Amino acid sequence: MNSPHTLFEHALADAARLAEESLDALLPKVTGPEAPVLEAMRYAALGGGKRLRAFLVIQSGSLFGVDRRSLGRVAAAVECVHAYSLVHDDLPAMDDDDLRRGKPTVHKAFDEATAILAGDALLTHAFALIGSPEAHGDPFVRCELVTRLAQASGHAGMVGGQMMDMAFEGKAPSLAEITRMQRMKTAALLNFSCEAGAILGKASQPMRNALQAYGQELGLAFQIADDLLDAEGDAGETGKAVGKDAERGKTTVVSVLGAERARMQAKALAEQAVRHLDLFDRKADFLRAAAGFVIERRA
Amino acid sequence: MNSPHTLFEHALADAARLAEESLDALLPKVTGPEAPVLEAMRYAALGGGKRLRAFLVIQSGSLFGVDRRSLGRVAAAVECVHAYSLVHDDLPAMDDDDLRRGKPTVHKAFDEATAILAGDALLTHAFALIGSPEAHGDPFVRCELVTRLAQASGHAGMVGGQMMDMAFEGKAPSLAEITRMQRMKTAALLNFSCEAGAILGKASQPMRNALQAYGQELGLAFQIADDLLDAEGDAGETGKAVGKDAERGKTTVVSVLGAERARMQAKALAEQAVRHLDLFDRKADFLRAAAGFVIERRA
Repeated sequence: MNSPHTLFEHALADAARLAEESLDALLPKVTGPEAPVLEAMRYAALGGGKRLRAFLVIQSGSLFGVDRRSLGRVAAAVECVHAYSLVHDDLPAMDDDDLRRGKPTVHKAFDEATAILAGDALLTHAFALIGSPEAHGDPFVRCELVTRLAQASGHAGMVGGQMMDMAFEGKAPSLAEITRMQRMKTAALLNFSCEAGAILGKASQPMRNALQAYGQELGLAFQIADDLLDAEGDAGETGKAVGKDAERGKTTVVSVLGAERARMQAKALAEQAVRHLDLFDRKADFLRAAAGFVIERRA
Repeated sequence: MNSPHTLFEHALADAARLAEESLDALLPKVTGPEAPVLEAMRYAALGGGKRLRAFLVIQSGSLFGVDRRSLGRVAAAVECVHAYSLVHDDLPAMDDDDLRRGKPTVHKAFDEATAILAGDALLTHAFALIGSPEAHGDPFVRCELVTRLAQASGHAGMVGGQMMDMAFEGKAPSLAEITRMQRMKTAALLNFSCEAGAILGKASQPMRNALQAYGQELGLAFQIADDLLDAEGDAGETGKAVGKDAERGKTTVVSVLGAERARMQAKALAEQAVRHLDLFDRKADFLRAAAGFVIERRA
């Protein structure tokens, strides 16, 4: 008999497979003198990662019976945005990382110019994917996805959060400032991933709000777990350099509260996330299980 | 009495004013710890440029009676994409330019990380602007704008063109290869600017095609004029460094054909552009005049 844990892992692996297949089909084929940027797009977006954002799109959408083709396409778009943000954040002028999931980062495997352009192209491609009729038959739904994705990823979301993260280096931001930064930098796209399923499924406003709130808390819990891995993790297991936050003088929830209280905080956020799912039945069990997953993961 | 030339200049100045006002209203206000990226967005997008793309949106849309509020918003979105492309192209890893319109480039006025993020945020903001109901009441129209803008600016458009431009450095691309590169790098967004007016105005397919074809030829003529300015222009007049193509070993239409034949080629393209407007009446006269403007401009 399968344990709930194993079932969750199956669902996560299934989401990863759908995301990977969709990305492979929807990313441009490598050809012509512009080949390096096309190859770098594929290098950045394919072949790895937990695909947590794809999982959230797929599971949220499944609550409302959204068809798999729409889900695959929107999951691919969200993963394109995630991949773009990693490529740009890893650049020498930003976090200057050489290693990502155990592989050289894009500017190391290619060069800086190609990495900048591949990030730009992945971001742009995400909007092409969700704006197209194949994402959903109703153009109103597609427009909702476009504007909400733009808000989550732009100056009021991921980009603004990354700017704040850099501005805080060597400073001593308050816990409230760190939380606002993480809401923008990390939680916004997880939040959108959950909301996207609701938008695709034309969910009622209360259900849409609940999924957004779930995504928000999940995102904050996820980020604390990430900071704990950086503070205590193993480079071999995580596939990226560790101890970088301390090295850069980054203030995190972990450095402010200490590991033990940070871990309790992550747990409390994960529990809060799950409570937002109270108005859904057993179909939301995989989303409930995801809250445990994000705070217990080892990589 | 006003000469046609003066009337055209009035129309261009009017478009620049509308673009500037719309951008000022639609770009985020500078506040919070993320202020540097917001300030850099405004620095890059406001205060200058010919606003040719805004002019094309406005003039094309005016052929179909599109209201000024929609036109201002879509023009602002196109100018955001144009500004983003300049910010990223100017980066040290790309064209490494210190001067743009007589002002320090964004990575000089701020720093590299902020320039990368400001470019990302401007690109993202463009999609937020055109995806929103204020761009047009019909969501189908907005989706068309989103997908066409994404195609024009992504891997099959501007980003791919910039990649090709860099890949061709020190090589000897054929005239056909240079033309394909310029179609993607420069003409695609001019093409979209013209098409956007037709999309907003729900123009017939022949009219939409005609405006696209006009934008395409205009874009190629524009690029040759740009290369001529780089080869023969004056830094004081153009507000940017000149002679950079030759310095970098860039093959251009000018370096292949020589200045005289390149000038004739630009003129032929501009005339061809105007012929695509034959199915429009006198209302398209400003677009006709623009073809002369792009090949005669001194900056």
